[in-house]
Amino acid sequence: MSKKANPSKSPSTLPEARGPDFKLGILGGGQLAQMLALAAHPYGIKPLIYANSAEEPAAQVTPSVHLGRLTDEKSLETFLRSCDVATFESEFLDANLLQKLSEKTKTPILPSPLLMGKLQDRWHQKNLLLQYKIPTAPFHKISSLEDLQKASPLGSEIVLKQRKFGYDGYGTFFISLKDADQHWEDVRQKTKEDFIGEQKIKFRRELALLLVRNSNGQIIEFPLVESQQTRAQCDWVMGPVSHPKEKALRRRLKTFIEKENYVGVMAFELFDTGKDLLVNEIAPRVHNTGHYSQNAMTLSQFQAHVLAVCNYDLPTPKILSPFAMANLLGQSGETPRWPRGILPAKEACQWHWYGKKENRRFRKMGHINALGKTPQKALKEALKARGKVQL
Amino acid sequence: MSKKANPSKSPSTLPEARGPDFKLGILGGGQLAQMLALAAHPYGIKPLIYANSAEEPAAQVTPSVHLGRLTDEKSLETFLRSCDVATFESEFLDANLLQKLSEKTKTPILPSPLLMGKLQDRWHQKNLLLQYKIPTAPFHKISSLEDLQKASPLGSEIVLKQRKFGYDGYGTFFISLKDADQHWEDVRQKTKEDFIGEQKIKFRRELALLLVRNSNGQIIEFPLVESQQTRAQCDWVMGPVSHPKEKALRRRLKTFIEKENYVGVMAFELFDTGKDLLVNEIAPRVHNTGHYSQNAMTLSQFQAHVLAVCNYDLPTPKILSPFAMANLLGQSGETPRWPRGILPAKEACQWHWYGKKENRRFRKMGHINALGKTPQKALKEALKARGKVQL
Repeated sequence: MSKKANPSKSPSTLPEARGPDFKLGILGGGQLAQMLALAAHPYGIKPLIYANSAEEPAAQVTPSVHLGRLTDEKSLETFLRSCDVATFESEFLDANLLQKLSEKTKTPILPSPLLMGKLQDRWHQKNLLLQYKIPTAPFHKISSLEDLQKASPLGSEIVLKQRKFGYDGYGTFFISLKDADQHWEDVRQKTKEDFIGEQKIKFRRELALLLVRNSNGQIIEFPLVESQQTRAQCDWVMGPVSHPKEKALRRRLKTFIEKENYVGVMAFELFDTGKDLLVNEIAPRVHNTGHYSQNAMTLSQFQAHVLAVCNYDLPTPKILSPFAMANLLGQSGETPRWPRGILPAKEACQWHWYGKKENRRFRKMGHINALGKTPQKALKEALKARGKVQL
Repeated sequence: MSKKANPSKSPSTLPEARGPDFKLGILGGGQLAQMLALAAHPYGIKPLIYANSAEEPAAQVTPSVHLGRLTDEKSLETFLRSCDVATFESEFLDANLLQKLSEKTKTPILPSPLLMGKLQDRWHQKNLLLQYKIPTAPFHKISSLEDLQKASPLGSEIVLKQRKFGYDGYGTFFISLKDADQHWEDVRQKTKEDFIGEQKIKFRRELALLLVRNSNGQIIEFPLVESQQTRAQCDWVMGPVSHPKEKALRRRLKTFIEKENYVGVMAFELFDTGKDLLVNEIAPRVHNTGHYSQNAMTLSQFQAHVLAVCNYDLPTPKILSPFAMANLLGQSGETPRWPRGILPAKEACQWHWYGKKENRRFRKMGHINALGKTPQKALKEALKARGKVQL
């Protein structure tokens, strides 16, 4: 897609330009941008950060920071002109604006803003899954009480999810269709957004996996992992795990990213119902469920994403050890302290602290990666280390 | 040592100060400083770089760069005042100046500048080895032709090494004592420096290992590795390897760093004579022979050094896989290109590019870490990958 839009700067025509000053723009200054920047440095790829403030995590790990808002067209244009290629850490950006600026500045933005735009709307995302015959929970479009009343084929209880800008459980409501009108009124008082209604899936556990594709069409795969969600937010991850339907699902997911000419890491959150493996959500970016790869694989998701969007060959990632990851969530409103207890000798834990200036309850402040003889043992280590931390 | 000099800022009294803004000063802007800075970021430790120019490798990976010369007292003082603790990437600094400034600013410099000063003089370094009964090649002090003529107990051929500022073979001469006066004249035309004369050791291979100690006295150890030296410069490393005298040597080395109250990574270059294991050289810093640890261990030498000088607990490093490291040396005088061929799929290689602006013959431009079923197989991968690179 970017090839067409930006013939002169398409990544696949750029090999010779990739000197030590090859510039990868990263839109966003949070922890995902930070870890992308840290992955880019050792490749000799210069990460340029576009952030709101110099205090954001990503702005602390590179000298090249452009301050601006993600909605500021002029500022974005200036930034994009300084990059050889650009990517993003959040899918909630203005897709049309980015596509326009990518064409105007001839700087490819990868993954494609147009696909990002489709995925940021759950209705379009679900339809894409149907189109590629990827198993997912049945759903309806819900924009009115009438829609809700017609949703009974989904079951007596359904999940309402805001079509746009919902994340970590924000904008998600569990609704009984018995008193649909009362519930709809409650929801409408909270938000005027449109929804999709999904069948409530009885799952045994939540799983996740990552695929990565570069512009040359090369695809690499990361292992299937279990992910524990608490308050609709990732709490911990462990792996590798397996599922009888994994292989079949991977085949369909690969076809999907291939046909969509997708470039970069794509994250898939899954429901394991025992018999089936359903895709719950897709994110066109590096993902919390892939952080384990920094210490448990021969290639991290951040390295893979950097290589993919700069169109380098993708080395096959190999598992070094069973692993786990535990998020460090904010516990108080106080300035976060360097949690000293977390680096105990003898535990094979790795510490990733994002350097956020404000500590809010449940805010992602960092994470711990642990290795072990089994995923369960690694998880035990990670949780033990986390238990010693007062944030 | 720093404890006494800087009671108010000694690392062991600093735990509470270690918020997300804990500042680690790094004197020097080269690749070792760069990799220290990259290791500090995920710990939430802010690396402040003291470099000659913003184009140096370390200055490219952090927003906090202080430009100045390593001999500029005023500039160093200002820099040290902005740090909570400081370290260095080269042992060839003005030890007395650093010690004075550390006392004046109350910012600990670790490892101790005074020990650095002793080690930077090969005569003092060798005497330290003797003092701790650490096996090393017999040596004499050589400052004159008379000294040289009296060196015959060392053998008919000896190695002359400049006492100060010799590295990667610079300042090293192999001399036959037969025509001592002629050789001495040749050497004197090249340099007026003082020397030590060492017995020329017939070794089977060169080995290396790292020890790390924090201010609390905790010591961790890295594995024994083989290191190939070409033109007196590190070419490749592989490991782990073993030697019958390894255990006994490690015991003495640990006593040495303990009694000297050493803090940080210390690198030991060794001669394996078959029967014996002799210490050839010591460096009070992270070292080229330890780069493998970035990808082959649960803790890298850079992480270990950062944790040690900030006086955190040191996790026991574990080997993830047999490994190898191959240096990428400059081949021409042209601007270095991003060597594209180096990231082939399927090879478990990791790429570390320092981003140097000038490509000089034999200059260290980057390195490749590889993993494999055996050290030999890992080395084969690393050399294969390096063979595809045109620098």
